[in-house]
Amino acid sequence: MYAQDLHEHLIGRQGSRASLNTPALVVDVEALERNIAAMAAFAAARGLALRPHAKTHKSVEIARRQIAAGAVGVCCAKLGEAEALSAGGIENILITSPVVGPAAVERLVALAGRTSGLMVTADHPDAVDALARTGAALTLLVDIDPGFHRTGVADPAAALALAQRIAAAPSLTFGGVQFYCGVQQHIEDFAARRAAVAERTEILKSAIALLTEAGLAPPLITGGGTGSHVIDAELGVLNELQVGSYIFMDRQYAECDLTGPGGAPFETSLFIDARVISANHAAMVTVDAGLKSMATEAGAPVILAGAAEGAVYRFMGDEQGAIIAPAGGAPPRLGEVVTLGAPHCDPTVNLYDAYHAVKGDTLVGIWPVDARGRSA
Amino acid sequence: MYAQDLHEHLIGRQGSRASLNTPALVVDVEALERNIAAMAAFAAARGLALRPHAKTHKSVEIARRQIAAGAVGVCCAKLGEAEALSAGGIENILITSPVVGPAAVERLVALAGRTSGLMVTADHPDAVDALARTGAALTLLVDIDPGFHRTGVADPAAALALAQRIAAAPSLTFGGVQFYCGVQQHIEDFAARRAAVAERTEILKSAIALLTEAGLAPPLITGGGTGSHVIDAELGVLNELQVGSYIFMDRQYAECDLTGPGGAPFETSLFIDARVISANHAAMVTVDAGLKSMATEAGAPVILAGAAEGAVYRFMGDEQGAIIAPAGGAPPRLGEVVTLGAPHCDPTVNLYDAYHAVKGDTLVGIWPVDARGRSA
Repeated sequence: MYAQDLHEHLIGRQGSRASLNTPALVVDVEALERNIAAMAAFAAARGLALRPHAKTHKSVEIARRQIAAGAVGVCCAKLGEAEALSAGGIENILITSPVVGPAAVERLVALAGRTSGLMVTADHPDAVDALARTGAALTLLVDIDPGFHRTGVADPAAALALAQRIAAAPSLTFGGVQFYCGVQQHIEDFAARRAAVAERTEILKSAIALLTEAGLAPPLITGGGTGSHVIDAELGVLNELQVGSYIFMDRQYAECDLTGPGGAPFETSLFIDARVISANHAAMVTVDAGLKSMATEAGAPVILAGAAEGAVYRFMGDEQGAIIAPAGGAPPRLGEVVTLGAPHCDPTVNLYDAYHAVKGDTLVGIWPVDARGRSA
Repeated sequence: MYAQDLHEHLIGRQGSRASLNTPALVVDVEALERNIAAMAAFAAARGLALRPHAKTHKSVEIARRQIAAGAVGVCCAKLGEAEALSAGGIENILITSPVVGPAAVERLVALAGRTSGLMVTADHPDAVDALARTGAALTLLVDIDPGFHRTGVADPAAALALAQRIAAAPSLTFGGVQFYCGVQQHIEDFAARRAAVAERTEILKSAIALLTEAGLAPPLITGGGTGSHVIDAELGVLNELQVGSYIFMDRQYAECDLTGPGGAPFETSLFIDARVISANHAAMVTVDAGLKSMATEAGAPVILAGAAEGAVYRFMGDEQGAIIAPAGGAPPRLGEVVTLGAPHCDPTVNLYDAYHAVKGDTLVGIWPVDARGRSA
């Protein structure tokens, strides 16, 4: 791996973070571990299963740490992601998007044959029929749309019909339901987010009631996210949490009041270290991280270290960004490192082949982003 | 390589494009070759050297085809990109961003030792001194800022001072100047773009005059882009073109009048094939390509095939997008493939490990994106 060729000699060398070739994706192992432990403790205290979403980190190493801390397994957004984590020995994977098309169905069957506890969601009778026709023993969850119309059956009646179709197929097992309030996760105010999630969850409650009445009480009721986990636990409808971003806490979630009174126990553990490569102006310099090095749909990154208080980052094309000094302040100098906080962690991680794991300012490991680019 | 594991058996099979696991990055080889040939003919007819920018494609295969068609070499935006292309046998590489920091300088020296015709830009005396101190024989170009303040010396006097510094260092060779009007490339109207580039180019002309007067006439005067190549040729100041995006023609450039009266000879050759994976609503369906599968900073992709005229794509998070049918029309059905045109090609390509090369609707090759993720 390229990152190992470049940086393996720095592992364990005091202060070696400063010597990384930039831009570099950096994870603070101690902050990461505290985040993992805090969510595990939260779920355990509420009697909820925890199945963290690996679409955030795409990493066998981090999945292992989550499972070691008590997670029942992980979620994957895509089949290719699940294949990559399974190849690294991760079991009990739930694929949270529908698997559609002959090639994907064939891969899913093969993956189920080599991955203990694999489950997949479905939201359409044709997709269920295609899986049933394979004759492979598969466990399916019915995905229920909370109203965003991204994935999921449209209403509780459709959830029941699909669950019955699954239950009627000899090779398929109805494993439960999935319900993910995606658009509600980032409502910044806790009370407003709580009200929105509670209102949406009525759909899920109706579906569970219908299913239960029909003798198909869902064993697994999985969903939720970092933005709603406190609310989901309080509402008491889900029995499993799919939280993802809590491990890294990007700028979007850092701006949310995640827990209401009491404050969030999560801290930023993911960083992009960039270096000043052009310094020809009094109030601004250019760093080597641009829109190929960070997700761009969530705005600019925050500057966490290496520049004066009040300095801001501005995208300057594919390869670079500007660090603009605050009024009266000076920008960092040529060659200096600026540490950025990702605007949105999941698609930022997906740009890198490896994490540089640090403790303090020392590189302690290089972890591959095993499922990077595995969108298919 | 993962894409080969998935798709090698499809190569040469009639109609195999439809069987690709999705989302898939697809390049139409015949359209690509026509674009490569058209730009090569343009440069040759104007007596300009052509050094296409490989930051667009990051591919040894495509660089080889450009060089076979007459290019003198390629540009790379970053050192890691140059390392990847050099490893594939590409020579005469110009690194268009400053190389700064001890680790990067060490890698540059090593790369120069194994890559014939390597050159690099510089825009700061400290960076030049760091390269001079290595004692390695390096050819440096002075990068001149056209006023965007991303990289480049601030004015013609600074260009002369830096060229003199390079010329005075025993191990360094002054190779010429670089001048890239980045922000002017996407001005949609030809006359407005022409006026803007012509106005900026006065800075370059002043610098060349100063350098020439001092006995340092720049051998190489390199720059320009797909948006300005006709204008640059007409202005007659550059002697080498760094065009990149012409090979793919993304939505941004397709919206530009590239050549003025007469029309642009370039056609879209880059596509993202996505598949409908959820279809539970009358007027919209969900495909499996979201913001991990396309650059997002340039807006939504266009739909080029697979949906009714007038259908539009909307991002629906990391993993998915919506295809919204036009009024009165129906969306595509579950499992059907929709072909999207990238909003901005360079950062879209950087998300994928491989191109799926097609002729018509048949897969003919799988080309690695060799320098994917090589931002460091």
